[in-house]
Amino acid sequence: MTDRIQTAQVEVPADFIDLGVGQPGQSLLPLDLIRRAATHRLGGDATGYLQYGAEQGDGYFRAALASFLTASHGTEVGPDALFVTAGASQGLDLVSTLFAPPGSTICVEEPSYFLALRVLADHGFRIVGLPTDAQGLLVDGLEQRLAALRPALLYLIPTFQNPTGATLPPDRRDRVVDLARRYGTLVVADEVYHCLGYDGAAPASFGRHVDGGGVLSLGSFSKILAPGLRLGWIHSDPPTVRRLVGCGLLDSGGGLNPFASAVVRSVLELDLLRPHIDHLRATFRARIAAMAEALRRHLPDADFERPAGGYFFWVRLPNGLDAERVLPVAEALGVGFRPGIRFSSSGGLRDRLRLSFAFYDTEALVEGVRRLGQAVARVRQADRGPAAQCM
Amino acid sequence: MTDRIQTAQVEVPADFIDLGVGQPGQSLLPLDLIRRAATHRLGGDATGYLQYGAEQGDGYFRAALASFLTASHGTEVGPDALFVTAGASQGLDLVSTLFAPPGSTICVEEPSYFLALRVLADHGFRIVGLPTDAQGLLVDGLEQRLAALRPALLYLIPTFQNPTGATLPPDRRDRVVDLARRYGTLVVADEVYHCLGYDGAAPASFGRHVDGGGVLSLGSFSKILAPGLRLGWIHSDPPTVRRLVGCGLLDSGGGLNPFASAVVRSVLELDLLRPHIDHLRATFRARIAAMAEALRRHLPDADFERPAGGYFFWVRLPNGLDAERVLPVAEALGVGFRPGIRFSSSGGLRDRLRLSFAFYDTEALVEGVRRLGQAVARVRQADRGPAAQCM
Repeated sequence: MTDRIQTAQVEVPADFIDLGVGQPGQSLLPLDLIRRAATHRLGGDATGYLQYGAEQGDGYFRAALASFLTASHGTEVGPDALFVTAGASQGLDLVSTLFAPPGSTICVEEPSYFLALRVLADHGFRIVGLPTDAQGLLVDGLEQRLAALRPALLYLIPTFQNPTGATLPPDRRDRVVDLARRYGTLVVADEVYHCLGYDGAAPASFGRHVDGGGVLSLGSFSKILAPGLRLGWIHSDPPTVRRLVGCGLLDSGGGLNPFASAVVRSVLELDLLRPHIDHLRATFRARIAAMAEALRRHLPDADFERPAGGYFFWVRLPNGLDAERVLPVAEALGVGFRPGIRFSSSGGLRDRLRLSFAFYDTEALVEGVRRLGQAVARVRQADRGPAAQCM
Repeated sequence: MTDRIQTAQVEVPADFIDLGVGQPGQSLLPLDLIRRAATHRLGGDATGYLQYGAEQGDGYFRAALASFLTASHGTEVGPDALFVTAGASQGLDLVSTLFAPPGSTICVEEPSYFLALRVLADHGFRIVGLPTDAQGLLVDGLEQRLAALRPALLYLIPTFQNPTGATLPPDRRDRVVDLARRYGTLVVADEVYHCLGYDGAAPASFGRHVDGGGVLSLGSFSKILAPGLRLGWIHSDPPTVRRLVGCGLLDSGGGLNPFASAVVRSVLELDLLRPHIDHLRATFRARIAAMAEALRRHLPDADFERPAGGYFFWVRLPNGLDAERVLPVAEALGVGFRPGIRFSSSGGLRDRLRLSFAFYDTEALVEGVRRLGQAVARVRQADRGPAAQCM
């Protein structure tokens, strides 16, 4: 809608460091790898991926994906339990259309991923946040909430959560699934950060629970390969997969992304994904170390856990300082972030902010945190100023 | 869900001729063209298409698409009026989510594309078919229907309709748009066959009407390039495009298909699409001639119009013969088709059937029609049998 020609979703000015951007940075987009895979796939004579594809997703791609997931997700995954999506957001949108009647209540973690909340909001659902601690969703009191609200879906980001980085322990996962089944609530586990653990592997995916019914695990290549492919998957039980496969959208358009699936099938079959993920892990580990040090130095009063995985630091500002008040000052100093309130279903979390280490290299991250420290100092100084004058 | 590894949506046994399949055949999928375009695009250093893409769709791709549409769709199309989708079905699904509240009434042509009806049905809408003649939607009586039903959407396939092949004349288009605007009904024109006219160009696309508001034109590369790309567009006015761009799905996942857009941008910029469409037109023209002759020979009592565009013959069986009764006999003889009842919103059109000429070459089409003639003859003979005995 402007005269500028836009290619990427987020185009940040060169002199601005937006620590709010939760995307892999330019230098982490594996052009050579995609080129190799595309050359491999397009070099063959087969044209199946140019045709309307199998609704469930190409069988060979699902077989390769199932092997990858079995090796990485802590549970045996078969190709028949996988449904190929055009990314986790598209998967969530489709699940919303098919499994939650209009007017449904949807429960989410407080806090949760603000853009997932927007996908749900477009369906007109009532969204209710459930309390969490440093390990994710609280199980105490969950049964009462489910009994009272009877939500159609319980949307969780159980591993290296966005924004908190929290990971739900195995015993809580079992309990959540048990309770959700009892109250007829479908568990939708958004596990897009599962492979990005930096201090060891994540607990087994919610895929471990799909055979008992009522559980969908959403995955994606956006965080571990390239968002522009728009390719992901849903891992679930046969009846749920059948309902997805049998919906009108799929019947009309066929499989959701045959062309990208074909290229990523080669990525998997040539074993290019695992080394790339290793590279991402090493890169993010180094960035986390540098950013944690910068936070301790430039925001010594702020509170945070060093992330064990995922893309984000979740920082608490000192003395209940409102992150939304800090934001304009920070932006004027050339740094951005996401205020905590954006991740709340109830206008809370005002002293929190989310910082991503995925988009920028170490040098920019450290400079961004330095500017943020300056911004916080200025706001606090301004707060002290008038108060001092009143005395 | 089976042991067989499935790639394509439709996998027809070698000795069966399924004239129901509305897809371009294997020999029409342009692997060399896609290879050239992919090599061109992936050979560059830019990685924008691997990132979350601009919500509206890549600006360069939209510019190339706008030029193509301006040359082919009979109206000036600007890049800002285009929104990139993952195909026309996905576009229709998104429009259903965003522009039709739960419980809405949707009006469609009687007959209409049965898979579009399934996409709408997944949203729980009430679907009402409106009467048509050989030129498409009837304008007489339309105002009363719109006034009484107040539909949220009027879904039309105005050009080389699926299944009838009918094309709505320009004066009726103007009238439909006027009336729909008056009653607050959004016109959704599915124009995926627009470029496939064999006896001259189609009338100007509904894109001609978008500036006045209330009109969306859906397009796709599925019928003119390759369905597996899952790439299409919506042409509409700025407020409608803004609503699409601003929805939660887009905000979360970015543009709907950056990778395929990048490849097709090269298809357009290298001017590979126009010659390919010319090739399709020449191929389909020859198939239509052969199939029309075969129909006259093997089904001399059947009634049909020779299609001026699109993918389909719409045939009326003699003496009110029920196409669903013919189908099992036809299948036993090795030929399939789509019975007319599948395209009806009210269980009608029983003596009609849809035959596609897109999937098979001339020889197979003629053989398929021969088998169909045999099947019809057998059913009529069986009908005469008992009747004769009664006399």
